[in-house]
Amino acid sequence: MTLDQRAAVCVLGTGLIGGSLLRAAVAAGYPAFGYNRSDSGAEAARRDGFDVSTDLPAVLRRAAAADALLVLAVPMPAVGRILAEIAALAPTCPITDVVSIKRPVADAVREHGLEANFVGGHPMTGTAESGWTATDPELFRDAVWAVGVDEGTRVEPWTRVTRLALDCGSVVVPVRADEHDRAVARISHLPHVLAEALAAAGAEGGALALGLAAGSFRDGTRVAGTAPDLVRAICEPNAAALGQVLDETIAALRAARETLRTDGSLGELVEAGYRGRTAYEERVRWDITGIEPGVGDWLGELHRAGQRGGVLRAL
Amino acid sequence: MTLDQRAAVCVLGTGLIGGSLLRAAVAAGYPAFGYNRSDSGAEAARRDGFDVSTDLPAVLRRAAAADALLVLAVPMPAVGRILAEIAALAPTCPITDVVSIKRPVADAVREHGLEANFVGGHPMTGTAESGWTATDPELFRDAVWAVGVDEGTRVEPWTRVTRLALDCGSVVVPVRADEHDRAVARISHLPHVLAEALAAAGAEGGALALGLAAGSFRDGTRVAGTAPDLVRAICEPNAAALGQVLDETIAALRAARETLRTDGSLGELVEAGYRGRTAYEERVRWDITGIEPGVGDWLGELHRAGQRGGVLRAL
Repeated sequence: MTLDQRAAVCVLGTGLIGGSLLRAAVAAGYPAFGYNRSDSGAEAARRDGFDVSTDLPAVLRRAAAADALLVLAVPMPAVGRILAEIAALAPTCPITDVVSIKRPVADAVREHGLEANFVGGHPMTGTAESGWTATDPELFRDAVWAVGVDEGTRVEPWTRVTRLALDCGSVVVPVRADEHDRAVARISHLPHVLAEALAAAGAEGGALALGLAAGSFRDGTRVAGTAPDLVRAICEPNAAALGQVLDETIAALRAARETLRTDGSLGELVEAGYRGRTAYEERVRWDITGIEPGVGDWLGELHRAGQRGGVLRAL
Repeated sequence: MTLDQRAAVCVLGTGLIGGSLLRAAVAAGYPAFGYNRSDSGAEAARRDGFDVSTDLPAVLRRAAAADALLVLAVPMPAVGRILAEIAALAPTCPITDVVSIKRPVADAVREHGLEANFVGGHPMTGTAESGWTATDPELFRDAVWAVGVDEGTRVEPWTRVTRLALDCGSVVVPVRADEHDRAVARISHLPHVLAEALAAAGAEGGALALGLAAGSFRDGTRVAGTAPDLVRAICEPNAAALGQVLDETIAALRAARETLRTDGSLGELVEAGYRGRTAYEERVRWDITGIEPGVGDWLGELHRAGQRGGVLRAL
């Protein structure tokens, strides 16, 4: 490893994901520091020996001096405020993010004129917990980390982001922003919406129903235990893609409801679901190799490989 | 324990639930034997040292001679055929069942004139696996076992069924058939339907979506890995109650879809889901005590206790 390979990382927001990333980066040998808005969160991090401040301008000036990789690790509603400060104080730093959707972040980055140094990111991991106390340097181990390969992406920030993800123990899926957002509507945001609906329907059955509930209800409602504000911050900014897949799902449920009424059958839905779960269980994460970042149509090649289920395990 | 407390048990159908019950009953000291329709299943059980035959008339004559507790452990579509044989060959044996719904079983029992000796049952446990190879004598440990307290239930068969459930390590929830079926529509059948819909929607996103899928999709679709025929045999006989809760759920999803469109909010659904999951996590299984089976309004008292979340841990 050269010095450049372990260039500084500056995590902006040290909640569950950002705080875990700070821990993982330090564990992997990165000089890493961070910012957190709340005194209590920053103090908890400092008590654990991490370099976290509530003074955003000071943190960004330090990041600019160190050419640190900036990691936006705040909920979508707070992204604009942070970007404005970056544009003012650290406009030449490479930037990534760990926000659950990519198009709105990319748009906000563009509004602040920071797109040249930006590469979106999304580690597909988390727990129902939140805040510094829930952080875990192993949170990213064997997880999938989506990294942007949109047109215009520059190889230097892309390489830094990808290397950080790999050093945290994840595999990297190269993906374009819009495709990412449509995919996570299906496999992350829809699961949240259906878990909420199921939990609400179960509780409507009162003490008897909740007393009879076993594994299928427990697992099906697990993510409904996530704090409502966090669920909304994750799902609502993806309204367009989520709305479309919700329409599809409502239509499928109505069709199943109709066949249940007319001929007592759930066959079509159950067969489709079984095929879907089987496809999930049998999915293969094949290794992307032989694509040289920065050379030729590397972005297009990575994009197509990601679409077909390929992952990067090394640079 | 007197001899009567460990009177014989005859399990009719040795798949996942029936086979596990046969194992658990033997482990608890019951003289237990069984019937299975398929040669392969019966043979697998015999290879493991259990007394299982494919000769239903012989098994039922033996049960009649031993006054065994008959346990119907076949899917709902096969219940009628077994009851006809019982009516012919073992009409005085006490009968229970482990089928996932209670009203259709009770109606079938009545059609065959066997209601005097019948007490419905439903252990709330299982896995996505099926067949003898998946059986486990510990499947019922710490599970909830619904036991019928419908009007007209007689104390002798009720006591035998309840004792068997307790001896298998479960706690017993006393419940009436219709209330059971409405409750499991919410906490067992709706989870299956939503898991199928989620799995189908995820797979529609192709390799990219399935490759990005993490814990929320994995847990939310787990039960969609159950064999389609089994899911249908569990859910479809409860069409009336399931249809009603599906209507409610579709309405809730459509309302959420509408507020997402009009003001970008999922607030109402997410808050309701969070309240529901919290109620589930905080539910209390309090012990029912002081009700003497067979004395006074014992069925009514048990029924009301079950409605309020009470469980029996001992007789």
